[in-house]
Amino acid sequence: MTFTRPPRIAVGPDPDELFDRAVVRGGGVPCRLDEQPDALVWTGGPAGFPELLPESVRWVQLPAAGVEEWFAAGTVKAHPQVTWTSAAGAYAATVAEHALALLLAGVRALPAHLAASSWTPTEFYPKLGTLRGAVVGIIGAGGIGRALIPMLAGIGAQSLAVTRAGRPVPGAAETLPVDRIDELWSAADHFVVAAPATAKTVRLVGARQFAAMKPTAWVINVARGSLVDTDALVDALSTGAIAGAGLDVTDPEPLPDGHPLWSLPNVIITPHDSNPPALRVPAFAEHVVENVTRFASGAELAAIIDSSAGY
Amino acid sequence: MTFTRPPRIAVGPDPDELFDRAVVRGGGVPCRLDEQPDALVWTGGPAGFPELLPESVRWVQLPAAGVEEWFAAGTVKAHPQVTWTSAAGAYAATVAEHALALLLAGVRALPAHLAASSWTPTEFYPKLGTLRGAVVGIIGAGGIGRALIPMLAGIGAQSLAVTRAGRPVPGAAETLPVDRIDELWSAADHFVVAAPATAKTVRLVGARQFAAMKPTAWVINVARGSLVDTDALVDALSTGAIAGAGLDVTDPEPLPDGHPLWSLPNVIITPHDSNPPALRVPAFAEHVVENVTRFASGAELAAIIDSSAGY
Repeated sequence: MTFTRPPRIAVGPDPDELFDRAVVRGGGVPCRLDEQPDALVWTGGPAGFPELLPESVRWVQLPAAGVEEWFAAGTVKAHPQVTWTSAAGAYAATVAEHALALLLAGVRALPAHLAASSWTPTEFYPKLGTLRGAVVGIIGAGGIGRALIPMLAGIGAQSLAVTRAGRPVPGAAETLPVDRIDELWSAADHFVVAAPATAKTVRLVGARQFAAMKPTAWVINVARGSLVDTDALVDALSTGAIAGAGLDVTDPEPLPDGHPLWSLPNVIITPHDSNPPALRVPAFAEHVVENVTRFASGAELAAIIDSSAGY
Repeated sequence: MTFTRPPRIAVGPDPDELFDRAVVRGGGVPCRLDEQPDALVWTGGPAGFPELLPESVRWVQLPAAGVEEWFAAGTVKAHPQVTWTSAAGAYAATVAEHALALLLAGVRALPAHLAASSWTPTEFYPKLGTLRGAVVGIIGAGGIGRALIPMLAGIGAQSLAVTRAGRPVPGAAETLPVDRIDELWSAADHFVVAAPATAKTVRLVGARQFAAMKPTAWVINVARGSLVDTDALVDALSTGAIAGAGLDVTDPEPLPDGHPLWSLPNVIITPHDSNPPALRVPAFAEHVVENVTRFASGAELAAIIDSSAGY
């Protein structure tokens, strides 16, 4: 689709000067939702989304990288005539950096160090590892996984990626298709979960998988809590089957007060704040500039949602 | 100097099979110290070092990257006829990785997260930063600083290096000579201290320097405690002049029980264990292989100690 005039783009649910400016920078004209927009940039959650979009709307940009809430709310399916895009990729570098922070903190035993109040190096020696020469399993090589791989390479770690089809991921030493994921658990030293939440990825990492891992393994989850079996994780952490976990997401989420994960010494919990507003909003605005530019020129949009795959 | 026969190399203070093998791999012949060695590979501290070396010894390899203890003990000056080499560079990647772990843990507010037992993301939002687009001041661009720069680049951070002469350091956005170091304090977002301990670097980072830093700055010290004024650091951390500190080294060291640094919430202390034995010993053995190879072929040794500079 190409335009003989600049596309008209509404921003909702609330007027927002930053995003109006992003629309203008992308070559669009900001308008209201009742002014026959060609597209809608949505900055809120699924709750306030219009039940019926104006017929003029052919594209909707959502603000989340993981859009399972939008599928659950029925929003995407209710508007099959519309091209939907997520913010997948927009926050990839920020979340990948967070995953690296959690993984390095684990490998360098920072939780145990922070709990100490005495100078006892020999106590820490057996807990200290390195990512240099280590193999990191990257489960899901979307934006976050792909952003993480070069960061790990800079430290001398190899990445072993798992994707749906197993097509080679740039920078990964090897890429496995998901039906060979069982080869991953004993082959990798550490794991970063970065795959979308779908029916097929529920509890992808559970008791059997933890049992196959090395006792020195750290497991990082920056995707969605549903991908990891929480009870099995608590068991694996308590029995020493794995060394620790860094969790930006949990199941249930929010993690209730008093949950065993709060008191385990080898767990780092960040309450889904790997992509905080101060970093998220400007990153989403840049994503909007890019996609409005593509929309105005008739190019393929970035991060088109595949409604059959659910992400 | 070249050899018409393989050089004879003693390992001390104790016989050590790993280092004998390293000597052989480098093309040398292991022998005892009383068997007229050409060189000595020392795996211990300064305390047990021979007062008088056999006259045949022309090269001594020390096991430390920072050798100020050896100068303090008078060992180097007592044997001016000998070429001394340190292990500088051998542990650089390991210590640089540790510095990155401390810096990322700080920027991602992991100490505050680890102290929490409730799901309160909004509490953390104002504390969360990113290294992407940040400028990291690297004070001292020896092995550790040079190993750190590409790791930071992989995350999208720029390095602003400070060296004695200011010759451009590969990968750094800019390199300042040490007489322009005062430009660094307000220009960088975070700081990694990685310079040798000499008379000129004592308390290089003190009250005036902390006052010039951004309140979001993290200061990481993986060099020697003497480079940072501890009382000024405690003040800066207590008053919020800087955001936090990651310390692998302290002054005094070991840090005594009850010292204020132990109880400040924005400090990560690792008790000089950034280069633990399990990682250090094999890295030193590789360094020995390299230097024995050079010694046997008459090439210039790596990490020759400059006894006028003190490192």
